[in-house]
Amino acid sequence: MHPSPLRIGLLGCGVVGSGLVGLLGSRERAVTDAAGGPLRLSRIAVRHPSKQRDVDLTGVAIGDDPVAVADAEDVDILIELMGGLEEPLAAVRRALERGIPVITANKHLMSAHGPELEALAVAKGVALRHEASVGAVIPVLQSLDQGLRTERCSLLVGILNGTTNFILSTMEREGRDFSEALDAARTLGFAEADPSLDLSGADTAQKMTLLARRAFRTDVPHGSIPTEGIVGMEPEDLRDAERFGYVVKLLGIGQRLPEGLDLRVHPAFIPKRYLLAAVRDEYNAVYLRGDAAGSMLLYGKGAGALPTAQAVLGDLIAVARERRLCAANGTPPPAASAPGMPHREPEARLALDDVRTKVYLRLTVQDQAGVLAQITQRLGAAGVSVAQMFQEPFVRGEASITLLTHEARDRDVRDAVAAIAALPAVRRAPRSIRIFDR
Amino acid sequence: MHPSPLRIGLLGCGVVGSGLVGLLGSRERAVTDAAGGPLRLSRIAVRHPSKQRDVDLTGVAIGDDPVAVADAEDVDILIELMGGLEEPLAAVRRALERGIPVITANKHLMSAHGPELEALAVAKGVALRHEASVGAVIPVLQSLDQGLRTERCSLLVGILNGTTNFILSTMEREGRDFSEALDAARTLGFAEADPSLDLSGADTAQKMTLLARRAFRTDVPHGSIPTEGIVGMEPEDLRDAERFGYVVKLLGIGQRLPEGLDLRVHPAFIPKRYLLAAVRDEYNAVYLRGDAAGSMLLYGKGAGALPTAQAVLGDLIAVARERRLCAANGTPPPAASAPGMPHREPEARLALDDVRTKVYLRLTVQDQAGVLAQITQRLGAAGVSVAQMFQEPFVRGEASITLLTHEARDRDVRDAVAAIAALPAVRRAPRSIRIFDR
Repeated sequence: MHPSPLRIGLLGCGVVGSGLVGLLGSRERAVTDAAGGPLRLSRIAVRHPSKQRDVDLTGVAIGDDPVAVADAEDVDILIELMGGLEEPLAAVRRALERGIPVITANKHLMSAHGPELEALAVAKGVALRHEASVGAVIPVLQSLDQGLRTERCSLLVGILNGTTNFILSTMEREGRDFSEALDAARTLGFAEADPSLDLSGADTAQKMTLLARRAFRTDVPHGSIPTEGIVGMEPEDLRDAERFGYVVKLLGIGQRLPEGLDLRVHPAFIPKRYLLAAVRDEYNAVYLRGDAAGSMLLYGKGAGALPTAQAVLGDLIAVARERRLCAANGTPPPAASAPGMPHREPEARLALDDVRTKVYLRLTVQDQAGVLAQITQRLGAAGVSVAQMFQEPFVRGEASITLLTHEARDRDVRDAVAAIAALPAVRRAPRSIRIFDR
Repeated sequence: MHPSPLRIGLLGCGVVGSGLVGLLGSRERAVTDAAGGPLRLSRIAVRHPSKQRDVDLTGVAIGDDPVAVADAEDVDILIELMGGLEEPLAAVRRALERGIPVITANKHLMSAHGPELEALAVAKGVALRHEASVGAVIPVLQSLDQGLRTERCSLLVGILNGTTNFILSTMEREGRDFSEALDAARTLGFAEADPSLDLSGADTAQKMTLLARRAFRTDVPHGSIPTEGIVGMEPEDLRDAERFGYVVKLLGIGQRLPEGLDLRVHPAFIPKRYLLAAVRDEYNAVYLRGDAAGSMLLYGKGAGALPTAQAVLGDLIAVARERRLCAANGTPPPAASAPGMPHREPEARLALDDVRTKVYLRLTVQDQAGVLAQITQRLGAAGVSVAQMFQEPFVRGEASITLLTHEARDRDVRDAVAAIAALPAVRRAPRSIRIFDR
């Protein structure tokens, strides 16, 4: 009665891989039921095969060559959790070429090589899934591929990085400075030893690339999204945000505008009343606006061993079920069934220079006659008009000026800020953070 | 190159049905692409076939017999959007018996007859989908069926009715009373002419039945969830909620507790900091907590012509794609592929009487010696301890006493409230609303 097991080849057995092996063991009955038959881990490739591991790998062939696993006769489904770029690329490519479906949690791989790999998967009639690569448990790729597949998205805004969101939440809640908050994130396991990909916004940009391709059905080349991170964020920025009714979040933004597709990653003031403003600590969320669906928000843990493993398991069950569905006569599924390959149309991109934004500015100035006039002159000359302004009393010859602007061309704002920074009365580099309230 | 169209039979062409016909027309290319081939509306059944409609029904056979549509040779997929119970039941049953997949938005039908219809669908190897029946665009059934299918849910809390959420939001924001807020909801199209199913909580209870079956993998008989609505809600209740740091929402609650599964529908105070507290107006949301996934929230429009039609379209594309997948040799999909039929285990239910809750109480009392002692005596006798108490100054011989209790057995609280209501010094029926802060 039982069909023969589908055999899994696993690349990488770190925290997520171990989490997955644990779930496959502890949920064996439910997984078998959901997948329409048993799954069995047959091979893994890890960097150090002889290392002692916490999980039960009895009967699993352990090696150190990812391509050999992708190539093995006793592997029906490949799961890539090793990270990196060149090594997993070679293995994933090999598996797809052989007609073996692939599941990966590797956002870097999919951002850099997704279009090529998806085309290969479609050509071979096999699935390539990567729900865990964006927002882990948040079912956002699945929703864009299925329920929202024909929806025309006008806006997608994501909080896609748990490390930076934890740091910003901690700074906001406890008034701590950036490096203290980063230490707290490290202590709690929300930041890696080298958090530079998180802090620079690069991690968010990779995830945004994957989301934008799907939500806007267009090509988004790897590395093409203008990106700013949160390094240098100051407690005063968060206090000012609070004072003006905002919260600071590192956002991935995608907007379909008449002038073109506006894609960018940067910290932003968002109104406190937004649901996204209530997304705190290590949580992620994706806000979507579609023509028929209206506004949606999907929220959950975007990282961590078990949440990520749970998302991989969801993909694995879907792939296994689909595979059994087609197994009856060995028919490959039609191309349309491979997720993530809707028809893509070229879409003009709107350069960040030409995006219109409101901006928060904080300047530290010397007590000097006419300094405010000099500042407003520089803004006015660039076509940037001021919506609100606060100047604190001078203390020891120095004062802080805080400004919120009306909407202006992003390039013009940056030019004005550069001109202001060059004024002799301006003491240090101005702080400038965009406001997002669409 | 093009496969022959899959032919759709549609029951009902009201706002949602018209919305769907409109989307099928305006998105024809994307739908064909996503479904792996064209879809064509071949037949509809409506109550008044001769009525003039806004949508283009050229070439569609229009009749008034739902079962005849379910039975027609030129129908490959049945979509039920007529509402009601007996009529759609007969038609859906007939279609499934013939091996025709069915999509419905009918929560009443699925709450009352879901288990029987799902068993029939599995036996016949066809899909039965109803994403639109709960939370419309919110992809919650899909997530529970797919990514979360093997997850062990410990908590599910939903705001599942847009009408009542709009009324509560309006009362809170504008300080209006219940009937004014209901009128506003009617004016804006968020309440039907007869809103009794919404206001009584029955609509929420039906949706909660569908969610609980899936999230907790157990049988939940139709009508078995203890339900209270929001009729009689007073502006003072919402003001007190605000004062104590809460917001009032009509919740569907499902909790897996050591003593059994706690399912209930009632208005509740929830802490202001909860994401659910920020779900306002006609929006719906489902909060989930799972053993590996952790906390998740899915948010969106739970009603309306286009959001509901969009959810139906998502189901339709999934069904069409799966149908083409199995069409190669006419193999029925394995039972495991029919969504919504994971293995269900019997689970003890915890009676509402035995649930432990905190409660908000508001009493109007006469200026009479010892009245507070009488009240606290009744509470103490029932084992209910007071966490906070406020008594306003007496005005014209009357004062309001507001209490928040510690956790106590629900039945004991109700007994105490009944005993307090019987005190001669208590002027009118006490207001009592449970607090949910798990």
